[in-house]
Amino acid sequence: MSKKPLVDIYMGSDSDLKTMSLTAEYLDKFDIDYNMYILSAHRTTDEALKTVKSSEKRGVDIIIAGAGKAAHLPGVLASKTSIPVIGVPMKTSDLGGRDSLYSIVQMPTGIPVATVAIGKTGAKNSAVLAAKILSIKYESVKVKVEEYMENMAENVLKKNKRLQEKGYKNY
Amino acid sequence: MSKKPLVDIYMGSDSDLKTMSLTAEYLDKFDIDYNMYILSAHRTTDEALKTVKSSEKRGVDIIIAGAGKAAHLPGVLASKTSIPVIGVPMKTSDLGGRDSLYSIVQMPTGIPVATVAIGKTGAKNSAVLAAKILSIKYESVKVKVEEYMENMAENVLKKNKRLQEKGYKNY
Amino acid sequence: MSKKPLVDIYMGSDSDLKTMSLTAEYLDKFDIDYNMYILSAHRTTDEALKTVKSSEKRGVDIIIAGAGKAAHLPGVLASKTSIPVIGVPMKTSDLGGRDSLYSIVQMPTGIPVATVAIGKTGAKNSAVLAAKILSIKYESVKVKVEEYMENMAENVLKKNKRLQEKGYKNY
Amino acid sequence: MSKKPLVDIYMGSDSDLKTMSLTAEYLDKFDIDYNMYILSAHRTTDEALKTVKSSEKRGVDIIIAGAGKAAHLPGVLASKTSIPVIGVPMKTSDLGGRDSLYSIVQMPTGIPVATVAIGKTGAKNSAVLAAKILSIKYESVKVKVEEYMENMAENVLKKNKRLQEKGYKNY
Amino acid sequence: MSKKPLVDIYMGSDSDLKTMSLTAEYLDKFDIDYNMYILSAHRTTDEALKTVKSSEKRGVDIIIAGAGKAAHLPGVLASKTSIPVIGVPMKTSDLGGRDSLYSIVQMPTGIPVATVAIGKTGAKNSAVLAAKILSIKYESVKVKVEEYMENMAENVLKKNKRLQEKGYKNY
Amino acid sequence: MSKKPLVDIYMGSDSDLKTMSLTAEYLDKFDIDYNMYILSAHRTTDEALKTVKSSEKRGVDIIIAGAGKAAHLPGVLASKTSIPVIGVPMKTSDLGGRDSLYSIVQMPTGIPVATVAIGKTGAKNSAVLAAKILSIKYESVKVKVEEYMENMAENVLKKNKRLQEKGYKNY
Amino acid sequence: MSKKPLVDIYMGSDSDLKTMSLTAEYLDKFDIDYNMYILSAHRTTDEALKTVKSSEKRGVDIIIAGAGKAAHLPGVLASKTSIPVIGVPMKTSDLGGRDSLYSIVQMPTGIPVATVAIGKTGAKNSAVLAAKILSIKYESVKVKVEEYMENMAENVLKKNKRLQEKGYKNY
Amino acid sequence: MSKKPLVDIYMGSDSDLKTMSLTAEYLDKFDIDYNMYILSAHRTTDEALKTVKSSEKRGVDIIIAGAGKAAHLPGVLASKTSIPVIGVPMKTSDLGGRDSLYSIVQMPTGIPVATVAIGKTGAKNSAVLAAKILSIKYESVKVKVEEYMENMAENVLKKNKRLQEKGYKNY
Repeated sequence: MSKKPLVDIYMGSDSDLKTMSLTAEYLDKFDIDYNMYILSAHRTTDEALKTVKSSEKRGVDIIIAGAGKAAHLPGVLASKTSIPVIGVPMKTSDLGGRDSLYSIVQMPTGIPVATVAIGKTGAKNSAVLAAKILSIKYESVKVKVEEYMENMAENVLKKNKRLQEKGYKNY
Repeated sequence: MSKKPLVDIYMGSDSDLKTMSLTAEYLDKFDIDYNMYILSAHRTTDEALKTVKSSEKRGVDIIIAGAGKAAHLPGVLASKTSIPVIGVPMKTSDLGGRDSLYSIVQMPTGIPVATVAIGKTGAKNSAVLAAKILSIKYESVKVKVEEYMENMAENVLKKNKRLQEKGYKNY
Repeated sequence: MSKKPLVDIYMGSDSDLKTMSLTAEYLDKFDIDYNMYILSAHRTTDEALKTVKSSEKRGVDIIIAGAGKAAHLPGVLASKTSIPVIGVPMKTSDLGGRDSLYSIVQMPTGIPVATVAIGKTGAKNSAVLAAKILSIKYESVKVKVEEYMENMAENVLKKNKRLQEKGYKNY
Repeated sequence: MSKKPLVDIYMGSDSDLKTMSLTAEYLDKFDIDYNMYILSAHRTTDEALKTVKSSEKRGVDIIIAGAGKAAHLPGVLASKTSIPVIGVPMKTSDLGGRDSLYSIVQMPTGIPVATVAIGKTGAKNSAVLAAKILSIKYESVKVKVEEYMENMAENVLKKNKRLQEKGYKNY
Repeated sequence: MSKKPLVDIYMGSDSDLKTMSLTAEYLDKFDIDYNMYILSAHRTTDEALKTVKSSEKRGVDIIIAGAGKAAHLPGVLASKTSIPVIGVPMKTSDLGGRDSLYSIVQMPTGIPVATVAIGKTGAKNSAVLAAKILSIKYESVKVKVEEYMENMAENVLKKNKRLQEKGYKNY
Repeated sequence: MSKKPLVDIYMGSDSDLKTMSLTAEYLDKFDIDYNMYILSAHRTTDEALKTVKSSEKRGVDIIIAGAGKAAHLPGVLASKTSIPVIGVPMKTSDLGGRDSLYSIVQMPTGIPVATVAIGKTGAKNSAVLAAKILSIKYESVKVKVEEYMENMAENVLKKNKRLQEKGYKNY
Repeated sequence: MSKKPLVDIYMGSDSDLKTMSLTAEYLDKFDIDYNMYILSAHRTTDEALKTVKSSEKRGVDIIIAGAGKAAHLPGVLASKTSIPVIGVPMKTSDLGGRDSLYSIVQMPTGIPVATVAIGKTGAKNSAVLAAKILSIKYESVKVKVEEYMENMAENVLKKNKRLQEKGYKNY
Repeated sequence: MSKKPLVDIYMGSDSDLKTMSLTAEYLDKFDIDYNMYILSAHRTTDEALKTVKSSEKRGVDIIIAGAGKAAHLPGVLASKTSIPVIGVPMKTSDLGGRDSLYSIVQMPTGIPVATVAIGKTGAKNSAVLAAKILSIKYESVKVKVEEYMENMAENVLKKNKRLQEKGYKNY
């Protein structure tokens, strides 16, 4: 178990890249290696299915997939592998991301996708969730997660302290 | 062009059979032959993709696919063939079928699914839409469609006449 | 069957023109001829019904109709002809296009409208769906559709390759 | 202005009759005469448009139209006549009547439909609204409306009194 | 019946004035006189109830009331008078106007509000609906309504003609 | 401050009594006295406004008001008194209670209603919220609230213990 | 009972400060003292629970808590104290604040949160609701609330007068 | 790593037990040990936080938490531990489970909950997702997951074969 943990990030289109870059940035915080793919469940089904098989061979631990509207990518990947898949629903301009959310979270029995929040918050949280999952296997990641959670708390407390000192008008 | 028109009906689960049987019954009205498959986009991706290729070889004109919740089947089939795909969103007990509808109708650019109404109305209408599409190629189906539309009108007029004669209390 | 395939595009108002122009641009990709009409189901019912009859006489294969809010145009046209009708729900500023979508997709038994996604994606996809439907009759369109689907795949693969080479920070 | 006020009640299907009968029952309360028609905007467009013209000739003051799902009937009638149209959105089993409501209330500029509540409450209220509108022209109806509103108040006060006397456990 | 028709326009707040001004502008088209009030159902209940009584005394034929969020104004006015009330749901920044719409249209049995579309379209249509209602009493308004409907049709036909002549690229 | 705390419970219709009885039952748990009124904001505006003034005179501390659909009662009462008003949105058969919720919670600036959950849970919680509010004034109620919260915890712990002992199959 | 009334304002993140500052500004109108805390239910659970205990010790009368998305803060605070908690749902960019609203208002039996409108209106109204609640205990606040309600009415009447004098075009 | 994988199942109320029992039944399929707790985030915050710490000490790999309405339990647990938390949104009678879903999936940055489908499907899928996550650490579970996925596929194919043999009328 000396190998480094590995995550594969998929997205359906390069229009999702701005959001999914946040996943990459957050994985960096936990010192987790990742690959990143633009592969559509619909436009490049064969390549997507082939790549998910290569994820298996490369010993990838977790797949993160972002997609919008009728967002099938996370589910399609989940159907082809025992690797757990985290799904990030893109925000959409007409339905606010409800369409992406329902298409990812309402998966039928047997093919779950671990769904996180809509949009940028979800993209960041997909990395944190990945880190938490990897923590069950990699002690080094667990240490990072615990540090991250402590920092997060300290950060809030610092803001609270600032508010107490400056008051809301000068915050 | 002497061959009979042919439709392939797919559904994701046998729990959809009660609804999708209405598609079959309505295709019978238009004297259109069909095959019927239970094949999940997620549980049997390979078989589904293989069967859609066989649809192409058998000269199938139209595919009708019913699915519920994160309803990927119509979109996955549409992504693999030039045959037009009609999608029927199943009614769901929690979200009323909104999840199925969004997962089918909100397909990304390049992979449209011709979506009809949620549930039983949609299942029947998928057959009528198939007949209308086949009408552009098969004169015999066009005749049936025109008859069907006339009958539908007469049927309403008969009901209206009955209402005029009996009044709403004795209808 | 030597005639060119023909599509009639209807829209309810010239405020829909910006969106429905995308339908025209995409039909051009498939070398499909089309006419375009601004005719409201409500404001110009007679003219709309007369024009749909002329669509029949001119041998039009498919009607595409875009409309917003209480979007009746696609359904009203579909009720008057055996020509299959594709409906494009306009995005709306208050309800996001849900009103347009429900008014188009929830058609009653016997009068289906082949509904595509809300807004610009839907406008483009109405053309692709039209091309797929025409493929069952016109071999030349089928060839174009297959090329289109291949290009679409290649396009995604190119983007994926670029991402692999440049990384997400320099994409 | 000695003629009796007259209302025409339209519904799209006899499945709406159970709900729309309440409109008739409530018009009876106000001693308002009415005709009742089953005529679909989609299945019998010509007959519907012909009948609305006959409504005009017969001097009908108000049209009430009930319809469900992609509920076009009220809007289609409103587009053809200067007679004010009241629309009653049917409750639907999948979307709860939101589809009917949006299809009736979100009419475009120039073709309003006076929309009331979803389902049975709306059917009753379409009659009350008709009576209120007729009150601007017929003094006899105005008297009935005022009586009705007083009775309604007394009815509530009686219930309140009963609650005060019996307590909620024995109400 | 020689008096001029009269409409009273109420709004809950001067933040609704920008939208409700469209009602006034449209009433001008039909040469209908109107008064305009800013009176909140909540902040100035007594004044609102007093003014609606003055509406009755002045022989007002129709009340139009615009309100947003928990939009009670139209319902509160309707509960106090036999004058028919038309309700205009304001668009809201968080829920898109669904809150205003439900608060106006879902009135209980006995107190209907004639509801029109959300936002600016609804404001305009409240005037058109008022004109249609007034047409049952005032021949002069009926003539204006019929002219308006014809102009509306001609306007669409002109746009259609322009599209045919110029093509969509030069429209 | 020796007087007993007092709550006035209002409901718009006796069809709400089944739900609002739970409010009464829960107030009994906290030994809080209450009156109960059936008074509609629309059908009996004057009586409702008169009664709320009597609530003030009788030294009522809190008003609880339940209402459904376009649920104006809580807001109308809140607009007439400085007594804090708790609103209970009734569940509705078509929109699930969203209409009641939005009509109660989305009150404009200056006239807040303290809104609780939809339906029976909300009816019970309106009593608990009343007790918590009364706790700021009446030490005796505060004691009851603290007991109630402890009991609630113990109750859950008992159930947990039972689950540990019996397992989920024999629970 | 000579102490000044006291309110504690909590928010989950400093991104909510812009909205929750309005609560502070409105409490100032009623001359009510307050403290303000940035403390997350999730990131700083222990500190939040400790602070709510300090609220109890300092004799705080009311807690106001603003939170967005899966907005747990108001409920978590309410679960730990008999002090009544008012919840302010933040507007969200994807779901408009429906997520915040449901997470705050749909609390289970026994742990109510007094919920106000989404966003800025709710932030202001949380202060007004707090003032109304404090009125049951502090006569001085009651006087302020009654003044506030009168001013609010006068303000509307002034606007109405201005509209009558200037007309809507010059308002 | 010879210890058996371990999952802790939490639910907020014994009314969730019927649904969450399916999680237990499905974990049995994968031969995964589990404990089950009824502990409310609101009613028994301390006990819940204490138990999650015991989960950590006992070396629990995954926490599954089911909750309904303002469903805070999964998020509260996730905030206190590095153990990954899977959330199951209960179906609700008024909002269909949308409230539970939003309260679980829309978690803020840093505290993700791996959300699955609403209701029974979600309860089953929480077990399958747990098994997939455990597969990254326990080879024995991975074998079970792969068997499960194959069986699932075979099951569908058997149903498809039956349909081919019997036809839909005798299925």
